[in-house]
Amino acid sequence: MTDRRLNALFDPRNVAIIGASRDGEKIGHAVMRNFVENRFFGQIYPVNPNADTIMGYESYGSVLDIEDDVDLAVVSVPPAVANDVIRECVEKDVNAVIVITSGYQEIGGDGVERSDELDAILADGDTRLLGPNCLGVWDAYSGVDTLFLPSYKLKRPPQGQIAIITQSGAFGSTVMDMLAEMGVGVSRFISYGNQADITDIELLEWLRDDEETDAVAVYMEGVSDGEQFIENAKRITEEMPVIMLKAGKHDAGKQAISSHTGSLAGSYQVYQGVFRQTGVMEAAHMEALFDYARALAYNPPLDGKRIAVVTNGGGFGVLTADALENQGLQLAEFSDETKDALADVVPSYGTVGNPLDLIGDADADRYERALEALKDDDGIDGIIVIPLLQPLPLDSEVVDTLVNFQEEYGKPVVTCMTGSQFTTLHMNNLEKNGVAAYSSPARAASAMHALYRYGQWVHRDD
Amino acid sequence: MTDRRLNALFDPRNVAIIGASRDGEKIGHAVMRNFVENRFFGQIYPVNPNADTIMGYESYGSVLDIEDDVDLAVVSVPPAVANDVIRECVEKDVNAVIVITSGYQEIGGDGVERSDELDAILADGDTRLLGPNCLGVWDAYSGVDTLFLPSYKLKRPPQGQIAIITQSGAFGSTVMDMLAEMGVGVSRFISYGNQADITDIELLEWLRDDEETDAVAVYMEGVSDGEQFIENAKRITEEMPVIMLKAGKHDAGKQAISSHTGSLAGSYQVYQGVFRQTGVMEAAHMEALFDYARALAYNPPLDGKRIAVVTNGGGFGVLTADALENQGLQLAEFSDETKDALADVVPSYGTVGNPLDLIGDADADRYERALEALKDDDGIDGIIVIPLLQPLPLDSEVVDTLVNFQEEYGKPVVTCMTGSQFTTLHMNNLEKNGVAAYSSPARAASAMHALYRYGQWVHRDD
Repeated sequence: MTDRRLNALFDPRNVAIIGASRDGEKIGHAVMRNFVENRFFGQIYPVNPNADTIMGYESYGSVLDIEDDVDLAVVSVPPAVANDVIRECVEKDVNAVIVITSGYQEIGGDGVERSDELDAILADGDTRLLGPNCLGVWDAYSGVDTLFLPSYKLKRPPQGQIAIITQSGAFGSTVMDMLAEMGVGVSRFISYGNQADITDIELLEWLRDDEETDAVAVYMEGVSDGEQFIENAKRITEEMPVIMLKAGKHDAGKQAISSHTGSLAGSYQVYQGVFRQTGVMEAAHMEALFDYARALAYNPPLDGKRIAVVTNGGGFGVLTADALENQGLQLAEFSDETKDALADVVPSYGTVGNPLDLIGDADADRYERALEALKDDDGIDGIIVIPLLQPLPLDSEVVDTLVNFQEEYGKPVVTCMTGSQFTTLHMNNLEKNGVAAYSSPARAASAMHALYRYGQWVHRDD
Repeated sequence: MTDRRLNALFDPRNVAIIGASRDGEKIGHAVMRNFVENRFFGQIYPVNPNADTIMGYESYGSVLDIEDDVDLAVVSVPPAVANDVIRECVEKDVNAVIVITSGYQEIGGDGVERSDELDAILADGDTRLLGPNCLGVWDAYSGVDTLFLPSYKLKRPPQGQIAIITQSGAFGSTVMDMLAEMGVGVSRFISYGNQADITDIELLEWLRDDEETDAVAVYMEGVSDGEQFIENAKRITEEMPVIMLKAGKHDAGKQAISSHTGSLAGSYQVYQGVFRQTGVMEAAHMEALFDYARALAYNPPLDGKRIAVVTNGGGFGVLTADALENQGLQLAEFSDETKDALADVVPSYGTVGNPLDLIGDADADRYERALEALKDDDGIDGIIVIPLLQPLPLDSEVVDTLVNFQEEYGKPVVTCMTGSQFTTLHMNNLEKNGVAAYSSPARAASAMHALYRYGQWVHRDD
């Protein structure tokens, strides 16, 4: 069971912004503005002893001066005073505190003392703390947004089904910006920094029980508690796919970590063992993290290896066949019934086969008829569709065709498209409708393989 | 020596467009319009017996009716009459003919007969033929453009240093569109189809001698003549990097090919041997093809394994360290002099190390001073710079910093940036100025490794 106080991170009744500021350069200003300008419906309490009002809100000298109970506090004050204001939050019995302030164990020296002091403060109460040294939380549904970067620099993604947990703030903010551009929907984003209190595994447990989240992408440098992780992760991955990018795999990366978040990276071999035992799916690199997360959030697991490939670009069919074989997947053998049905769809100058080349003059209607012909073939476990938009006859309608087909089909469908803004616009629309769109055959095939691996995990005998 | 008649493909004195049409749906219309609207300075002769004028140009009944010698002819007529018009081109002694028309050996049956007839026609003269069943040529400098797709569907890239040779038209047009969006400059694009006459290796030889081309990206399903390829490719790769995506590696892909371009895919093991012998660099997938080509076109080879990593995002430094180790490259050990110089650049709350974390508050000036400090360190063979634009202090100026630094440095520099349109705009500017910009640490590291492999090839002892 997750601590109900964690709910305050995502959907708080009210928020105290400690370090709120009228100075546009200050982090506390950006955080305050996020809450004021977003669709956040709770009460907002700026806390700053040097101001009477901030953005029209009455400012408090201390969180202790707020009459109401406080659900969430966000702390962005200088390191020298951070522990003092956190102590007041504990005294006030605030449910959860997000500490953006850095200067704790990650800097060594003074920072280690400051971390020890923080531990003692937290031990005196029930307040839960995210951070320090983090970006905090962005919640697509409640409007909580402690990302202190302006939206022209860091776009926010649309509401969606993927949660992100990251130990690196820079990684997290950068990928949020990237996902926004791709139209990939995110449910919750959590940058957890030093894990002085709330841990990676607690956040995963919370997300497992979150109705808005269907898959979690994790960037991790070092796990908080290996035994606790192993014990709990398996119960999480059985209900929700967890994909992890482990940073600091090798000696070079490990050394880089110690001066970054102060984590112990641990042996990569040990991590690989943990991944195998717990069903956490490892992503070898950043692209794979979100390639897998998208496929897994939008699709059921892949129950077999037999894939159909449908395209209007012959070369892309060939590359996809290669990529599937690289992934240990197979081209499905179509049934006679399917072949007969396809013979009416493919023009006389084409060939019925898998990859199914619908020829460069295919329009959305030919795609629709081809997919219809494949729909009930039991010999097909999933479909990769590659609708290239460069040829003239294929227009925007193909997006509707694919969205509708995926809803009906009940088995995995992923798509691949490559091109300029005209193409990325359509990929964006697919993503917004929960159809994964990849920019290359290799990425589409590896996403299909992630669906296969997850299927093997949830259906394993043990 | 390459046949000088091949020059007519790229920079013809004049062009006959056989099948030019007033009908906007026809390929011959699109090709005609490309030449009319582009910066093509030669004479344009539409050939269409059913029209007096096309787009204001006098139309000819046959290429034989043109009084002037004809340098280039483009053929887009129905298959049934294609050989007849090609025969007239041979009779006219046209230097080169691009045959877009399909319906030759790739369709089997009739098509095979048509191919045999075409061979006989070509044997009767000196005319050289590209295709059939191809998209033809796009030349960034002369304005030759036979890509019959409108620019809202298929953007054309800016002028640049990378040539593209492709056996698949769909692959070629799709990646042109993608490269245009990325701002990646292309010199010449050649879709060569069935290779009835002009072969892959002849095109490579022509490009080796082309002053505008610094690297060639090749999509190949099957080589025209293995022995000839092996004999000649080595002499090409010593002067110019050739990167190849071999399609139809496995059984699945090979079967897909036979119905696509009618090529024999051959054994992938044999191809791998050819790559090793000839210095042609294999790209495992589509992204790698252009990731390598960009690094190789813009940079000298990498002469050692010792890489410096400079970033304002700690997590990206860690991921890059991991990615370099995956590629068999190393993090450089900075000299004492370099460390002293960097101590003045990195803020007191940071650490001098490699990866060099310039901290989230780094601006372009801090980047400039850091790169200056690294410039003369003999222990560094190349630099990966990761300027994340999400943090507020880093602005557009960093593009100038990087472009200027690469010009001065004389060793390889590649960059990595991730984000939304604000970021991709800056990546675009880097590319347009010949600085390779990758969207992830793994891709930047693999590009650096391509530079290392090419260095090993050109400096080998044998």
